Amino acid sequence: MNHATENTALLSSAAEEARCTLTSPTAMPAASAFLWNRRMLLQVNCRGFVVARHMQPEPAAYAHAPNLEAKTFMQPEQPFYAHHPGRFLYVKDEDNGALFSCPYEPVRARAEQFAFSVGADEITWRLRQAGLEMTMTLRVPVDDAVELWECTLRNDSPGARRISAYPYFPVGYMSWMNQSGEYRADLGGIVCSSITPYQKVDDYFKNQHLKDKTFLLHETAPDAWEAAQSVFEGEGGLHNPDGVRQPLLGGGDARYQVPTAALQYQLQLAPGEERTLRFLFGPARDDEEIFALRERYLSATGFATAAREYQEYLAQGRGCLQIETPDRELDAFANHWLPRQVFYHGDVNRLTTDPQTRNYLQDQLGMAYIRPQTARSALLRTLSQQKADGSLPDGILLSPEAELKYINQVPHTDHCVWLPIFLRGYLDETGDHALLDERVIPEGEDKVDGEGHGRSVFECVSRAMDWLAAARDDRGLSYIGQGDWCDPMNMVGYRGRGVSGWLSLATAYALKLWAEICRQQNQLGPAEKYVRLAAEINSAVNRHLWDGDWFARGITDDGTVFGVSEDQEGSIFLNPQSWALLSGAADDNQRKRLLRAVKQQLETPFGPMMLAPAYTGMREDVGRVTQKFPGSAENGSVYNHAAAFYIYSLYAIGESDRAWHLLRQMIPGPGREDLMQRGQLPVYIPNYYRGAWYQYPAHAGRSSQLLHTGTAAWIYRCLIEQLFGLKGEGEGLRIAPQLPSHWPQAQVQRRFRGAVFDVQFERRVRGDGLQVYVDGEPLTEPLISPVEAGRVYHLRVLLPPAEGSAPTEAVEVERNTENTHPV
Amino acid sequence: MNHATENTALLSSAAEEARCTLTSPTAMPAASAFLWNRRMLLQVNCRGFVVARHMQPEPAAYAHAPNLEAKTFMQPEQPFYAHHPGRFLYVKDEDNGALFSCPYEPVRARAEQFAFSVGADEITWRLRQAGLEMTMTLRVPVDDAVELWECTLRNDSPGARRISAYPYFPVGYMSWMNQSGEYRADLGGIVCSSITPYQKVDDYFKNQHLKDKTFLLHETAPDAWEAAQSVFEGEGGLHNPDGVRQPLLGGGDARYQVPTAALQYQLQLAPGEERTLRFLFGPARDDEEIFALRERYLSATGFATAAREYQEYLAQGRGCLQIETPDRELDAFANHWLPRQVFYHGDVNRLTTDPQTRNYLQDQLGMAYIRPQTARSALLRTLSQQKADGSLPDGILLSPEAELKYINQVPHTDHCVWLPIFLRGYLDETGDHALLDERVIPEGEDKVDGEGHGRSVFECVSRAMDWLAAARDDRGLSYIGQGDWCDPMNMVGYRGRGVSGWLSLATAYALKLWAEICRQQNQLGPAEKYVRLAAEINSAVNRHLWDGDWFARGITDDGTVFGVSEDQEGSIFLNPQSWALLSGAADDNQRKRLLRAVKQQLETPFGPMMLAPAYTGMREDVGRVTQKFPGSAENGSVYNHAAAFYIYSLYAIGESDRAWHLLRQMIPGPGREDLMQRGQLPVYIPNYYRGAWYQYPAHAGRSSQLLHTGTAAWIYRCLIEQLFGLKGEGEGLRIAPQLPSHWPQAQVQRRFRGAVFDVQFERRVRGDGLQVYVDGEPLTEPLISPVEAGRVYHLRVLLPPAEGSAPTEAVEVERNTENTHPV
Repeated sequence: MNHATENTALLSSAAEEARCTLTSPTAMPAASAFLWNRRMLLQVNCRGFVVARHMQPEPAAYAHAPNLEAKTFMQPEQPFYAHHPGRFLYVKDEDNGALFSCPYEPVRARAEQFAFSVGADEITWRLRQAGLEMTMTLRVPVDDAVELWECTLRNDSPGARRISAYPYFPVGYMSWMNQSGEYRADLGGIVCSSITPYQKVDDYFKNQHLKDKTFLLHETAPDAWEAAQSVFEGEGGLHNPDGVRQPLLGGGDARYQVPTAALQYQLQLAPGEERTLRFLFGPARDDEEIFALRERYLSATGFATAAREYQEYLAQGRGCLQIETPDRELDAFANHWLPRQVFYHGDVNRLTTDPQTRNYLQDQLGMAYIRPQTARSALLRTLSQQKADGSLPDGILLSPEAELKYINQVPHTDHCVWLPIFLRGYLDETGDHALLDERVIPEGEDKVDGEGHGRSVFECVSRAMDWLAAARDDRGLSYIGQGDWCDPMNMVGYRGRGVSGWLSLATAYALKLWAEICRQQNQLGPAEKYVRLAAEINSAVNRHLWDGDWFARGITDDGTVFGVSEDQEGSIFLNPQSWALLSGAADDNQRKRLLRAVKQQLETPFGPMMLAPAYTGMREDVGRVTQKFPGSAENGSVYNHAAAFYIYSLYAIGESDRAWHLLRQMIPGPGREDLMQRGQLPVYIPNYYRGAWYQYPAHAGRSSQLLHTGTAAWIYRCLIEQLFGLKGEGEGLRIAPQLPSHWPQAQVQRRFRGAVFDVQFERRVRGDGLQVYVDGEPLTEPLISPVEAGRVYHLRVLLPPAEGSAPTEAVEVERNTENTHPV
Repeated sequence: MNHATENTALLSSAAEEARCTLTSPTAMPAASAFLWNRRMLLQVNCRGFVVARHMQPEPAAYAHAPNLEAKTFMQPEQPFYAHHPGRFLYVKDEDNGALFSCPYEPVRARAEQFAFSVGADEITWRLRQAGLEMTMTLRVPVDDAVELWECTLRNDSPGARRISAYPYFPVGYMSWMNQSGEYRADLGGIVCSSITPYQKVDDYFKNQHLKDKTFLLHETAPDAWEAAQSVFEGEGGLHNPDGVRQPLLGGGDARYQVPTAALQYQLQLAPGEERTLRFLFGPARDDEEIFALRERYLSATGFATAAREYQEYLAQGRGCLQIETPDRELDAFANHWLPRQVFYHGDVNRLTTDPQTRNYLQDQLGMAYIRPQTARSALLRTLSQQKADGSLPDGILLSPEAELKYINQVPHTDHCVWLPIFLRGYLDETGDHALLDERVIPEGEDKVDGEGHGRSVFECVSRAMDWLAAARDDRGLSYIGQGDWCDPMNMVGYRGRGVSGWLSLATAYALKLWAEICRQQNQLGPAEKYVRLAAEINSAVNRHLWDGDWFARGITDDGTVFGVSEDQEGSIFLNPQSWALLSGAADDNQRKRLLRAVKQQLETPFGPMMLAPAYTGMREDVGRVTQKFPGSAENGSVYNHAAAFYIYSLYAIGESDRAWHLLRQMIPGPGREDLMQRGQLPVYIPNYYRGAWYQYPAHAGRSSQLLHTGTAAWIYRCLIEQLFGLKGEGEGLRIAPQLPSHWPQAQVQRRFRGAVFDVQFERRVRGDGLQVYVDGEPLTEPLISPVEAGRVYHLRVLLPPAEGSAPTEAVEVERNTENTHPV
């Protein structure tokens, strides 16, 4: 097989519309995109493999692995294999027997032309092979767990063609209790049925509502079908199935066998003729539900209506910023993909029923820029689950049936930190200070006490701050317990004594933010108290954790300071540096030193690593993070959430170009080499890129393909408030841009509190200050206040001239074989 | 691909040695065999797929699925797929590029000759293809979790050959926390490492001892290797991997990728030359352990020693019966495979740490005929975990760390029944009545009370019988609670009122057996009490559960009698009929009627179904059994354990030919059609064959391939005590054979209490009684008592002449389209 490099461009991206097109199924084999609605999430890769979950209300699969899979959270770098769930279309030439499959799996025959074309509201593959053009388009409706598939086959050859087309939607191993599949003429498709396995009688009642059926419905009746996986595949294997090799599929049922959904269409196509086939694929509880979905969607009209409604849904998430800059890839990302990812997180809460509290608050921080009323409700919901002592639970339960699962069963100490961080963003964006007076009703009777009823948001947050301020040791540092923001840092303080440097700094920062809000509320006493506490903590951190060139990560139960130059592994962590910049713990000299240390030891071509060198063996006084594979996840990857904190902190201290460089690194491409190394399309930010750059350079940069990350909200915020500097302040909008110094100009449209700001940034050739014109009139202070809803403001923003050196030189990282931590 | 039927015989079997050979990889694609030792179990199918677990002490995999698999019990009809774990050897002709794989997967090229040759102590594949002979042999040592593989390649062609051979042992998806694979020259092989995923700090300490490494060690250094699955497979797919298509494997590591173990040997073979390669594959905790295993085993001597020791181990399980009958397939099964399966169950307790109590007692009933001291200890262990009220727990914990898992977390009501059943078999076989006086020390402090200490076995069992007798309702029938022997019959009585017809009858039978033992112990008062109670129960069953032609299965919480002719589904159950024969509840008229009903409604060519018609939908007053797929497992399969009860009960009432017919049906073959329908080799009895013969005839007979079943012990007992009628009684051996009437003769060697009985059975042409000669002397009563240990007895047993009709006619089942329960 010839795996030669393609001649065509690997990727094309459009700034005007959300559209990203990959032209090879093999160059970035795990490259993926996602679609979601209120009931499901689909992650689809370029080769046709799909990871799909629907909510009932807990996440569940409806196309399964070929074995009994563990129920778990989404896994980083999810591996694929022949029988992984996916959606495929075999195409057989009835005259010469040539076999092909769309989009690439399972036959893996190379198409003459291949396009994996990702839109915001649909995903399309477009292939040309041997005179046929084949397209497969996936859409979802807004409110049902069902996939809408449209497949078009077009004869582009000069003569008539006889082909068989086989939609093949494997359903996998459904259940050891009961699984089957059969063709249902009455419903118009293959219906696979199962009983979710269980053993305890209580679970029978719990499971009764489960959607244990998986269907593939057709609009056009097929010529044949097969519902038994082993019969379809036969001895030929998935790349050459017996079923497809026969003239007609056998029309068999699966009876306590692994079911599948395979249909056959024998098509005769005149030159230029095309046929469009529509299908529904999804889970259901019973026949009635299947029938209703068919009625609602399975027609050209049904698809068109669903598409229009979905576009309307997505429009709610278009965000508040449209940009046109010298960086067209950034434009595409910032205008379409980033707000879409923020909206996904904020609208459906990562499709969990118990979002981790810190994630929930940060996702909703993002939502403040998209649909603030959702963010507002989320804060109230969070506070309604606040504990009696002022702390927050580890996850926020979104329904009465929800339970804390997985990592939310492990206690973490940082959740309160995110309250003022959320509020600072929310209040700046909305000016909705009334939220602080809103009364919070505690959820559940066990939380009702005399004090609890009807506490204000302001009081709730103050109590949370008091809890944070109190959860410190004699040194004045914050206890880490079984983990802070870093979930798997679970053994630093599990015996009750260890402290977190990061959490101490984050607490100081949170207290400062809260003090500011207190001041704005005229609560001067509390404001002063919190400022004093923040200073006290900063000073404790400086006393115990400054290592000479950077801040340490913490102190273990046994009193060992770690994340210091003496450590052979994990000697420097990114988060304490970022938050020392935010909290003000770092003075000018410390700033310089820690910026240099980060650059030298943590920065890579793919972003800054979260720690280095990655741990290669268990460190029992640090914990589980040290057992993760070096360079993956929290063990020294380019963990984008942490990178975003650092970028935000760099903007906070005016390190614009440094911040820009790292922000730009977070978006894959545009270079071919960079894309292939990451294997990631620039349609979302993954939770990490592999780190351990000095230890495992071959794999560094590879994307986790995990689309759930607190990063999106922070980067969106960075763009709006920092890079373009269009940030709410009191009743107005402050203009304080930090454009990269090499940009000569940029245009931005910023929607803010019902007004629209059309902004033209221009880099001055000379002069020395920022100058802002509103509708032609210069401002004495770069603040527009109050902002009038409904008004369109035309802003011209003259930027100070760029200084000195080339923009990226200062921060470019060289692979240095003399690095202090070589492999 | 040509899947034409083979010309050679499908199966060959040897009576002299344990050897069963299958000559096609496709005729019975799931056909499997197993090897085990004290630390592991391997089930291997003819195509090379392997399900393997080792005990640490809980069962764990060391070759994994390609995804994160659920931890669960062994599943019936386990499906296979391309990336399922297995052990393979690719062979590439370096001159013409022809690619082949042993034994069949993953390439699936058809060999000119194929043999899957199963021995008791090893499994060998022998293939011929294009002038090469390839063999792969798998052995295990007695006491280490490691596979010993020997692969031989022989050039049978006239010219020299240049080939590359690639052992390919996929390791699968080990962990989302940490997985890797690399070649280790120091250890001589590929070592894959992982961290078992966890999130809670307590689990770190629990997991510390886990064997998280998987190794493939070679005796002969390879020319190349590859440790990254995706690199080995490439775009070619497993049937044509990129790695194998290249001149040399790339020598790559897996770094947080799915690892694999692939080696390459470039071999030049002169005509007639052969090369043998040896490998170890298994789990380990650390390098030291890997190194030690290498030292111990990885050589011709090491393999030979391990093989010898394993044969010695297996010899402990050879059993007490060697037969030579007109049925050579039966001979092979009874002499080798059946005692081997019984020994497996009894020696390693199905490789669980918490065997279900009923399974444990029945498996150990089998062990009474194999290695009685093990059975004895098991009874004592069971009673040491008896609850204060006399009942038994749902599982017996074999180590202090063990916990009740899966179905053992659901309470069942039948466990006490198996105590006197076990004891009857054990005492008859051993004469060890001293066991009844043995003192039982309760395990664990919470079970210690004034009464508990040092109670005798006799007292413990009496208390269990009293508990059984008391656990009945006003009608005198036994409460079923959340299930009796039938685990998933969990909603008949979960509200506390429903009763079990089967359990009532089993209780009556158990009480009768115990009464008999009481009498033998001169405990006449208790004997009388238990006889009276048994009669009371039988009479209650007759009053409430006789349905006119058979006994009902029970009465639900709401008072509905079920398992009756009025029921559209589940109208007749096998178990109540069998146990009514055993308990004596059925009078002569009832016997006739119920035998006829079983024949008409339950018997199939593959054995009797457990119930019929199989349920096709949930019946909420019966429970989970009705949700299982119709004809699978407890929902109306030929559930061999239940079939064995019926066979035993038929022998108990002297229905020899009827019993023989069903017993013979339990063993697959010898006909080709029967073998192919079952898909099962006659090397073990599976827990079920598919039933629902009238509902889903196409699938009826298919084996579950599950080798764990209480059947084996019962069938072994039937052969020894019933069919050949060589049963212990008091101090002696009673001769009461029930040979099938069409057998003219048979020879048997029976080992019994240290003596050997060489028995020659002969069918008389005329005369009317049984006549036994010992060493030429006729016995007045067919009882040899006392038996002298060390003595060899020569017995000649003259059987009464066969009567009337052809032996199978009376019980042959016709597919009857006018059956009362057609599809």
